[in-house]
Amino acid sequence: MRNEVSAYLEEAREDVLAEIRRLAKAGSPHGARLYDLMLEYPLRPAKGLRPALCFATCGLLGGTRDAALPSATALELYHNAFLIHDDIEDGSVLRRHSPTLHRHHGLPIALHVGDGMLALALEPLLVNTKVVGVAAALQVLQICARMTRESAEGQMMELEWIRERRWNLRDRDYIRMVYKKTAWYTFLAPVLAGAAVARRSAARVGSLARFATLLGVAFQIVDDLLDLEGEQAELGKQSRGDLWEGKRTLVLLHALRSVGVAEREELVAILDRPPPSSRTEQWAALHEALQRVPLDDEQRVALERVLVRPHERSQRDVDRLWTAMEAAGSTAHARAVASAHAQRAALALDHACHGLPDSPHRRFLRHLVTYTVERSR
Amino acid sequence: MRNEVSAYLEEAREDVLAEIRRLAKAGSPHGARLYDLMLEYPLRPAKGLRPALCFATCGLLGGTRDAALPSATALELYHNAFLIHDDIEDGSVLRRHSPTLHRHHGLPIALHVGDGMLALALEPLLVNTKVVGVAAALQVLQICARMTRESAEGQMMELEWIRERRWNLRDRDYIRMVYKKTAWYTFLAPVLAGAAVARRSAARVGSLARFATLLGVAFQIVDDLLDLEGEQAELGKQSRGDLWEGKRTLVLLHALRSVGVAEREELVAILDRPPPSSRTEQWAALHEALQRVPLDDEQRVALERVLVRPHERSQRDVDRLWTAMEAAGSTAHARAVASAHAQRAALALDHACHGLPDSPHRRFLRHLVTYTVERSR
Repeated sequence: MRNEVSAYLEEAREDVLAEIRRLAKAGSPHGARLYDLMLEYPLRPAKGLRPALCFATCGLLGGTRDAALPSATALELYHNAFLIHDDIEDGSVLRRHSPTLHRHHGLPIALHVGDGMLALALEPLLVNTKVVGVAAALQVLQICARMTRESAEGQMMELEWIRERRWNLRDRDYIRMVYKKTAWYTFLAPVLAGAAVARRSAARVGSLARFATLLGVAFQIVDDLLDLEGEQAELGKQSRGDLWEGKRTLVLLHALRSVGVAEREELVAILDRPPPSSRTEQWAALHEALQRVPLDDEQRVALERVLVRPHERSQRDVDRLWTAMEAAGSTAHARAVASAHAQRAALALDHACHGLPDSPHRRFLRHLVTYTVERSR
Repeated sequence: MRNEVSAYLEEAREDVLAEIRRLAKAGSPHGARLYDLMLEYPLRPAKGLRPALCFATCGLLGGTRDAALPSATALELYHNAFLIHDDIEDGSVLRRHSPTLHRHHGLPIALHVGDGMLALALEPLLVNTKVVGVAAALQVLQICARMTRESAEGQMMELEWIRERRWNLRDRDYIRMVYKKTAWYTFLAPVLAGAAVARRSAARVGSLARFATLLGVAFQIVDDLLDLEGEQAELGKQSRGDLWEGKRTLVLLHALRSVGVAEREELVAILDRPPPSSRTEQWAALHEALQRVPLDDEQRVALERVLVRPHERSQRDVDRLWTAMEAAGSTAHARAVASAHAQRAALALDHACHGLPDSPHRRFLRHLVTYTVERSR
């Protein structure tokens, strides 16, 4: 099962990579370096979930692979552009086992490459008019417009929670945010686009959308769990990064709701502390510069007192959060919520597939449900 | 004349602002703050050149204002999104008389608001299918895709010149970069979109494109001159910022070509120095932090030696560059190139307008040529 899923994912990724390479080559020679840099993230090891979902939904409904190729390519370009910008916003250091683009090439160029990819993503969407006709092409454009808007709104919800120091959040708040931020652009948009370019079986779209939404939420919860429990080597990025950054996850919110008042206050105090200086780039640069300053110990202590932000989050804080989560059974809770969503996703998929023949596409989508909750990266 | 141009610009800006406000309000309440922040740049005092060009071209060719409104709105959204991202990339401090968005709200939120505006720009482009029909709406989408690609390539050319420390550039290198980076998205795209939604007179599009290209190049050269000669109060941003940043402008490139070998080496040495620490944000933060450290004078000097980058560009360097430009007649050269482009733009416009009735749109476009070279901001 796992091999079949991997093979399907890999093939989808290869097809889309070839198309991205072709698009990049078609650009002006004056932009050669821009296009080289655009390929950096797509070429690093990745799952290729979005293209595979788009191909599979199209194939499931009897559409051809060629019909889905431009949409799958555009979705992959959007995804990688968002990754570049997210990495800048979060000050992330590693992405897919290598330094993030802004660490490697500087913030201005990285930001700009992301914008370039957003621009490039429009091209396959317009080629679509010739591949699947104007009506379906416009539908896919609508889907992409909705996707980018939903994900911008979802991410802003999260930034607002951080700004307002909001921690009294319910599972449904988290799920609404994740629906907008992750489910729409990782699952819903690829599935809806795949259905649009298949140009058949509009009756099944409702169930397919339900499938995508539920699986998208399950996927993000499992992602949060992997961040807590996975190893850096497997994740391709630092583990427990969410606890260092103070991200609102289902696991953490459950723990905060489960503990007593005093313990809750202690945990929120930890979470309200700023992430350590060494984890933000300006401060890292400052500390590096300071290492080279010839100061005696007393001066150094005085300097540190002013320059290092007080009470920043420490390894002990992160360990403390983790202990509280374990004691409250929060990872088990999150795993249960993820499984329930995956089960309902499977039912919605069965409903959508009713009367359709067996096919690699159908098997991929069915196995993807299991893969989503059981994967290790 | 100037009043007529100003009134036309102002009216175009008002119409588009109302539309942007409407789009922002139609967003989910969960994104309320995102949409508030999206309005910040558009609401600051600005020319509104792109919407006016779109309305005027459409009106010139007999199209209605309603037909051009969605395209004009999308172009204004793209423009403001790019401004936010450019300000981050350049580390700019002021935009339109107020702090840049990232100075005001932090880099992550500013970057994200820019992405949100790029997403929002797709919506009026899709509404277009109902306003001007599918064919014209798709044409405008093609124009926007080309515009974003050209401007990404143009900006990358400039970043590459900086990275490679290239100074031996001819006027035509500069003009090719500016054609891509500025002319396409400030002039060519609004004019082509206005013509597309008017859905008439395809025969005139060639001359109109020529008009837009030539005027776009003239506009950028004058912008460079204003940066050198204008006052901060009028510009809404720091004056001579291009010299501090070491931007390749027609004026500067002319000076470098005009002076003798020894002087050229001296000027290039100045230009190869990094911009002063106080002009980059990380360094500004570091210096601010250092002000609060209790050090004696000797220690402070030692610290400065390590922390301040050696040989950074100074006010004296900027003055030296300016003197060399004046001595070489470089501003006069740039003004002559701008005027020649504007004159050819006027001829192309006359050709495009042949046989069309007099109208406020035609008068606006004609006066815009004069305005472009004579404006003071």
